[in-house]
Amino acid sequence: MKRKICVVVTARPSYSRIKTALDAIQNHPELELQLVVAASALLERYGTAVRTIESDGFNIAAKVFNVLEGENLTAAAKTTGIGILELSTVFDNLNPDIVVTIADRFETMATAISASYMNIPLAHIQGGEVTGNIDEKVRHSITKLSDYHFVASENAKKRVLDLGENPDLVFNTGCPSIDLAKTILDLPKLDFNPFSKYGGVGGKPDIEKGYWVVMQHPVTTEVSQSRMHIEETLKALHELKEPVLWFWPNVDAGADGTSTGIRAFRENNDLSQFHFFKNMDPLDFLKLLSHSKGLIGNSSVGIRECAFLGVPVINIGTRQNRRARGNNVLDVNYSKSEILEAINQIKSNPRPDSSDVYGGGDAGIQIANLLAEVPLIFHKTITF
Amino acid sequence: MKRKICVVVTARPSYSRIKTALDAIQNHPELELQLVVAASALLERYGTAVRTIESDGFNIAAKVFNVLEGENLTAAAKTTGIGILELSTVFDNLNPDIVVTIADRFETMATAISASYMNIPLAHIQGGEVTGNIDEKVRHSITKLSDYHFVASENAKKRVLDLGENPDLVFNTGCPSIDLAKTILDLPKLDFNPFSKYGGVGGKPDIEKGYWVVMQHPVTTEVSQSRMHIEETLKALHELKEPVLWFWPNVDAGADGTSTGIRAFRENNDLSQFHFFKNMDPLDFLKLLSHSKGLIGNSSVGIRECAFLGVPVINIGTRQNRRARGNNVLDVNYSKSEILEAINQIKSNPRPDSSDVYGGGDAGIQIANLLAEVPLIFHKTITF
Amino acid sequence: MKRKICVVVTARPSYSRIKTALDAIQNHPELELQLVVAASALLERYGTAVRTIESDGFNIAAKVFNVLEGENLTAAAKTTGIGILELSTVFDNLNPDIVVTIADRFETMATAISASYMNIPLAHIQGGEVTGNIDEKVRHSITKLSDYHFVASENAKKRVLDLGENPDLVFNTGCPSIDLAKTILDLPKLDFNPFSKYGGVGGKPDIEKGYWVVMQHPVTTEVSQSRMHIEETLKALHELKEPVLWFWPNVDAGADGTSTGIRAFRENNDLSQFHFFKNMDPLDFLKLLSHSKGLIGNSSVGIRECAFLGVPVINIGTRQNRRARGNNVLDVNYSKSEILEAINQIKSNPRPDSSDVYGGGDAGIQIANLLAEVPLIFHKTITF
Amino acid sequence: MKRKICVVVTARPSYSRIKTALDAIQNHPELELQLVVAASALLERYGTAVRTIESDGFNIAAKVFNVLEGENLTAAAKTTGIGILELSTVFDNLNPDIVVTIADRFETMATAISASYMNIPLAHIQGGEVTGNIDEKVRHSITKLSDYHFVASENAKKRVLDLGENPDLVFNTGCPSIDLAKTILDLPKLDFNPFSKYGGVGGKPDIEKGYWVVMQHPVTTEVSQSRMHIEETLKALHELKEPVLWFWPNVDAGADGTSTGIRAFRENNDLSQFHFFKNMDPLDFLKLLSHSKGLIGNSSVGIRECAFLGVPVINIGTRQNRRARGNNVLDVNYSKSEILEAINQIKSNPRPDSSDVYGGGDAGIQIANLLAEVPLIFHKTITF
Repeated sequence: MKRKICVVVTARPSYSRIKTALDAIQNHPELELQLVVAASALLERYGTAVRTIESDGFNIAAKVFNVLEGENLTAAAKTTGIGILELSTVFDNLNPDIVVTIADRFETMATAISASYMNIPLAHIQGGEVTGNIDEKVRHSITKLSDYHFVASENAKKRVLDLGENPDLVFNTGCPSIDLAKTILDLPKLDFNPFSKYGGVGGKPDIEKGYWVVMQHPVTTEVSQSRMHIEETLKALHELKEPVLWFWPNVDAGADGTSTGIRAFRENNDLSQFHFFKNMDPLDFLKLLSHSKGLIGNSSVGIRECAFLGVPVINIGTRQNRRARGNNVLDVNYSKSEILEAINQIKSNPRPDSSDVYGGGDAGIQIANLLAEVPLIFHKTITF
Repeated sequence: MKRKICVVVTARPSYSRIKTALDAIQNHPELELQLVVAASALLERYGTAVRTIESDGFNIAAKVFNVLEGENLTAAAKTTGIGILELSTVFDNLNPDIVVTIADRFETMATAISASYMNIPLAHIQGGEVTGNIDEKVRHSITKLSDYHFVASENAKKRVLDLGENPDLVFNTGCPSIDLAKTILDLPKLDFNPFSKYGGVGGKPDIEKGYWVVMQHPVTTEVSQSRMHIEETLKALHELKEPVLWFWPNVDAGADGTSTGIRAFRENNDLSQFHFFKNMDPLDFLKLLSHSKGLIGNSSVGIRECAFLGVPVINIGTRQNRRARGNNVLDVNYSKSEILEAINQIKSNPRPDSSDVYGGGDAGIQIANLLAEVPLIFHKTITF
Repeated sequence: MKRKICVVVTARPSYSRIKTALDAIQNHPELELQLVVAASALLERYGTAVRTIESDGFNIAAKVFNVLEGENLTAAAKTTGIGILELSTVFDNLNPDIVVTIADRFETMATAISASYMNIPLAHIQGGEVTGNIDEKVRHSITKLSDYHFVASENAKKRVLDLGENPDLVFNTGCPSIDLAKTILDLPKLDFNPFSKYGGVGGKPDIEKGYWVVMQHPVTTEVSQSRMHIEETLKALHELKEPVLWFWPNVDAGADGTSTGIRAFRENNDLSQFHFFKNMDPLDFLKLLSHSKGLIGNSSVGIRECAFLGVPVINIGTRQNRRARGNNVLDVNYSKSEILEAINQIKSNPRPDSSDVYGGGDAGIQIANLLAEVPLIFHKTITF
Repeated sequence: MKRKICVVVTARPSYSRIKTALDAIQNHPELELQLVVAASALLERYGTAVRTIESDGFNIAAKVFNVLEGENLTAAAKTTGIGILELSTVFDNLNPDIVVTIADRFETMATAISASYMNIPLAHIQGGEVTGNIDEKVRHSITKLSDYHFVASENAKKRVLDLGENPDLVFNTGCPSIDLAKTILDLPKLDFNPFSKYGGVGGKPDIEKGYWVVMQHPVTTEVSQSRMHIEETLKALHELKEPVLWFWPNVDAGADGTSTGIRAFRENNDLSQFHFFKNMDPLDFLKLLSHSKGLIGNSSVGIRECAFLGVPVINIGTRQNRRARGNNVLDVNYSKSEILEAINQIKSNPRPDSSDVYGGGDAGIQIANLLAEVPLIFHKTITF
């Protein structure tokens, strides 16, 4: 009898991060994968990750629409409430042996609560990190609900242990996103045309001589400032006049501040050097990054995959605060001038080396093996 | 402009525990109380705490029915999901400055998530303790979502700090339930007739020469065993042949195992020495305890108020595991013989002294004063 | 490619009513049955119909817990809201060609709304009847959401047509509950012992020389009177001193008024002639009815199956108002004396003849055949 | 003691339609208005009607965010389910004497179910009309749940009576939207600049010599065709080369088909004669209509207010099918050529006369007076 492992994917970047673990679970002789796709992973506004998932060959055990629309934080809370209501029914019907929840987006709390309240052993991927907003509360809160911890760095492992978790069930597997990065580490050149393959809107600049990639998410606890934040980045890159491939932000309270900022800037400025994408196959995205001049924004991709790939990163603001990092990252404030200065610095320095601070590229395999072996328990007490 | 303090009460025992803090908030010149009553506090099966609350003179800002019916743990998860959906709307409409959540019942997570996701500063009462079931996960998880911590003992304070919370915002106020106990510490004799005042069902034994009080809740992660657990207690007290005043358990997954056990035992045995109550005014309950021979079961009242009142307690099973305790507690397993042995031990020993391990009786005042003074923040990062 | 027919069963009596249609759908070569079990059909308090369903050999495609606990009507509304949330996900995942909703219980509205809003063709069983409470609003409201109508009598057919439905899609199939009744029409004697087979509580009167069956539900719009209503019946039968087999009521707002009334009466009276059952296999229940002296209460079983079986019925109150009936029914008010008078009348009259006012016993087959043949549409306009 | 009248507004056009009734209720000496704002009326994407409501001086008793995001019909069903959950709590806390629900948008069913299930007398505004999609099912279904009917035409009154409603409680008040139209019937010229007052995007054509207004909503049961539908209109008006003031559609499943169609057309065509608005004060909107060459699309404004104002209307497709109409309407299919032909016909004909088919301009007052006088009942049976 195979162990049934139910993984809940709620957003495009989470899927990209977990993909190699999903492959490893699916291919493991003692595991059966039950994949649930929910929240923004189902929505067109955020790139419809579900289509990528299906075209990657995964069967979807259940889809759960639970994103409540609204420009305020209330919607984030209610999205989580609806998620609990529905995931409880899904788990009741799928009857998994272990549920896996990924990282720290607000709605992942729904997975954690449904599973832990239903006495289903819960595994958390990427606990123990530190950032600067609601994700911070969510992440450590989920750690306290989880039975197994698959963390991505030594630093994170120490923190989960310090939170009073059982040392026998905390594992530094590295981050599965690195597994994917490993497969393209030595790719000589970009092997696809992003404009023709992925559409999107905006200009089609010549990217042969280099380009920048931007991915900047709103920071939930600073909703009202989202627009100002994005405008600094827009102004810096507008002034730079080099090709820019810009990725649309995920759903979040404040998303509309960011989106509005981008739309308004486009109405009033010549952005022929900018192209906007909604989504991209994760592997293609990594290829695009690895051949770029650098990544600008606040995505965790800059901290993780780019460390491994040796891609320079201009990390804006507090979102990735205190996450362990390689030497590829320049931290700046929401400031046009700081961004431009960092761009110059990157241009004048050699490419950073690859770093294994987030693992060596076998996290997915390690996670699958551990899921097959860990004792099935859902009862714990704090260690201190 | 007064600070608006929204307290969410979801169960009879939580109300009893928080009552003096509610009084102090209501009477504080710089605070406005917004009292929300939800979940089992509204239901007749669990004693309709809401009527007590109203007759105690509190205005209720909103009522939220969110208990999903069912004999399984799925219902507990879904109850929490519905709670989030509804409390988010309530908070959106009441617009509080601080939300207060109490202790560690599963559904209190709904309060914590709604408030923290909506960027409302969140105060948690009675974090940092240790017990043996899902409450354990819930309690520490709520600590990680909360901004202020009003803990009940030094032991709890240390644990909250070890969880990485900001030392400036962790306060050992003692437990407000002790405040209530303080008012009856020197009451010479029981000043009401429990049968005529509170009804209930069963025999009406002569309690003049002493009686035992029972309050035993099901332990959520051991659902299937609930009935066996309660039967050991029933058999022990049936054999003892002394008056027993028995309080019905709270809602919880498994509640029906416990209830069924009690009902079946009543059908088949002479329980003329037993009387069953659904609920009692908190103060009357403390009076009843203080004049009893002792409390039997697994209620936290035995650990807290009974320590202060010097009432002997036979604490059954793992539910109160590792909570700080005075010298009034005898721990036993689910075992008729161990229970009977502990009863004998109590009879042959002197009454325990009063202990201030859970505070000195001014917790409510301290909490109100702190709520008026703490900085209004909802942004934190772990201290390590 | 078989048509996928999704039937949602939300209560024990609905299952009993639809069972032969479920069999016929399951056995039809062009249909695939997707059975969803929800609401009180899953709850122990109401007899756990789900266990009967499983032991009858049906596969359950999904279970949905959605009964919100509470003594008020708010809970009925919220139960329906949760039902919509969850059934929408279930339908999204099952992707049925037709959804079938049964009769007029409040929560069946959830099935109707989810299916019709999702453009899934909706079939309604047992529209067009008239009763005296919220069911009345629900029933006709569902008719206006439905695309196909499988009604149980000519009278009902006329009413659905008068409501402006397309005559091509309104079918008088008779009631599938009659199909089951047909199988036991000529059973010579009761072939099981109800006490030993079904447990229950109360006395075990000698039923060899005859017995009465009681099934009386609370009437939702008269909540406060539920207890008085049930007491008249209790008093009448207590005075009669003949064996009574009493069936516990379904979940409904007010259920607790009825239940409380029964429990209180039991505490204070000798009910050794009464036995209380929670549930019974539908077929056994019909056998029990067919060999009884008569059915007392307000169940629709009295109007339908008992008409076909020729069982005398004392129909109390307004609940079955204006439903077409055979000559087996005596209508009385909530009145001990009227009930006793009707009992005497039954005793002095010959047994009623069988009536086919609710069909001839092939409704299930007819419904399955129609489900295989009707055009798949979800778009309609009123005919006038 | 004033009667508490709770009106639930869920969308911008519903507010505009009900505004004069809200005024009349607020000013009535025996009525107290409890205004609940929910669903898309709260969302920026649909014009944030809530801000208009507040600036019009209404107090809002509760706000309810319940729009679930998604490109499919599942989201519409779930939005309704969440609405029921939340409105039940709102009604439980507000305790209204009568609830008022408006027209036939899918989410208004939530208001109807919560009120009727909670035994709160329910008034329905604008029942009895006939259209061509899910609204049709919703409208008549709500009629069957409602106790009072305030219809807008004789035709509608007859249909509600034919549905079996009590003639004493069906009132042809006319449509309150006409009340507003009446106040501007004789306005000599447009007295504001729509571009400067309302922003929006697109060209700023010279509207002095006339302009067309477009408001075309997606038709829910034909989701996949939404884009084709809108493109015919876009092409026709692009070819016409006259000024066009275009209003963005409401939220609905398929909204994104329509929106996508508009956005794509804008990317690829010169739309300097088009200006796009998200929302407008209802009165300003009527002024704009009354001075336009005509309204194009499928809004009910064309059928109602434009009949009274004598504005020519090109009504596209089936959405307003079978609604009573004045002689101002030309019906066409989704067809560029038919639209252009109808435009020519309007240009060559005299302006239509004002029609009172939807009332004489005192509907709001009539509704308020009736709400103060009708008996408070929630119990009905069908009349046939």
